[in-house]
Amino acid sequence: MIDKIFDFVGGDNGQWKVQRITKVIGDSLGNVPFVRIMPGGTQKSNEGLWTLKGVRSNLRYTEKDEEDKLVAIQAGLGRPEATCAALIPIRKSEDWWSLAQDDRRRIFETQSQHINTGLKYLPAIARRLYHCRDLNEPFDFLTWFEYAPKHADAFEELVAALRKTQEWEYVVREVDIRLIRATE
Amino acid sequence: MIDKIFDFVGGDNGQWKVQRITKVIGDSLGNVPFVRIMPGGTQKSNEGLWTLKGVRSNLRYTEKDEEDKLVAIQAGLGRPEATCAALIPIRKSEDWWSLAQDDRRRIFETQSQHINTGLKYLPAIARRLYHCRDLNEPFDFLTWFEYAPKHADAFEELVAALRKTQEWEYVVREVDIRLIRATE
Repeated sequence: MIDKIFDFVGGDNGQWKVQRITKVIGDSLGNVPFVRIMPGGTQKSNEGLWTLKGVRSNLRYTEKDEEDKLVAIQAGLGRPEATCAALIPIRKSEDWWSLAQDDRRRIFETQSQHINTGLKYLPAIARRLYHCRDLNEPFDFLTWFEYAPKHADAFEELVAALRKTQEWEYVVREVDIRLIRATE
Repeated sequence: MIDKIFDFVGGDNGQWKVQRITKVIGDSLGNVPFVRIMPGGTQKSNEGLWTLKGVRSNLRYTEKDEEDKLVAIQAGLGRPEATCAALIPIRKSEDWWSLAQDDRRRIFETQSQHINTGLKYLPAIARRLYHCRDLNEPFDFLTWFEYAPKHADAFEELVAALRKTQEWEYVVREVDIRLIRATE
């Protein structure tokens, strides 16, 4: 079985140096100098000040034609020039989770253009989603972004656009962690 | 945080007495006399011969009109007359999980009538789904059914109908555990 669970450990060392941790909605996370991303199990790690656990999972809303467009243009993580990163954990309300699949899809894409907005910033802004709601975690998703310093303004645009959507009205907790690649 | 994770522990005691464990596709599970259902954490339990962990999660395919029909007619678990139960763990192939959301939905409902077939047997056959793929478990889903002895034939029809669908061509492991309520 391939381990799909990863731990994001905020502590004294790691591959990514924290620039700032900003509370967007609800409680923040404790300040830490570094974040380490490591393969995780279902057990809680005791390392660091906090650990956020997430699992790479199947697509939940993306349809085939959208997936084809994403695959054609998206960039992978780990590009040498992509020295900037953001880790944005969010939690959505119970109202969101009690919606049926078609209602969530309509808000997510038809009204909020979540996929199409992300597409506009590809391949500059690489993105990977981790799910955590079903792991009894404090957040529902961890989204990890990587980009080159010259695309920092574009990244701010992307984040600002998503935060204005109808989908974001269901977000009850959001923390925005900005990082730069560390030399370990 | 409400604990949504449950352990199905196969061992020497429990609320449900095992009648038989049948291998449908792929490897079976070890024979045990009882199954105990208990609140679980993300950690592996050491109790029993085997433990299957699952999480109650949000709807993945059900649309609003279908949910309304289900809610109007479905029965809860724990009815005194529902002394028969089945625990059916399944795992689907990587081919299934790499499909986009609209392709999975089309196979699941438009072609395989998964929701509509279940509806035909409500409220006689109560059903609860637990997800486990994202917990690094050997199965992707555990489905728990409860029904009265007089509906045993209807339950066989339901299971047989689902196993003939296009959706089931993606099932790579399935075990069928039949149980009766035990007096603890």
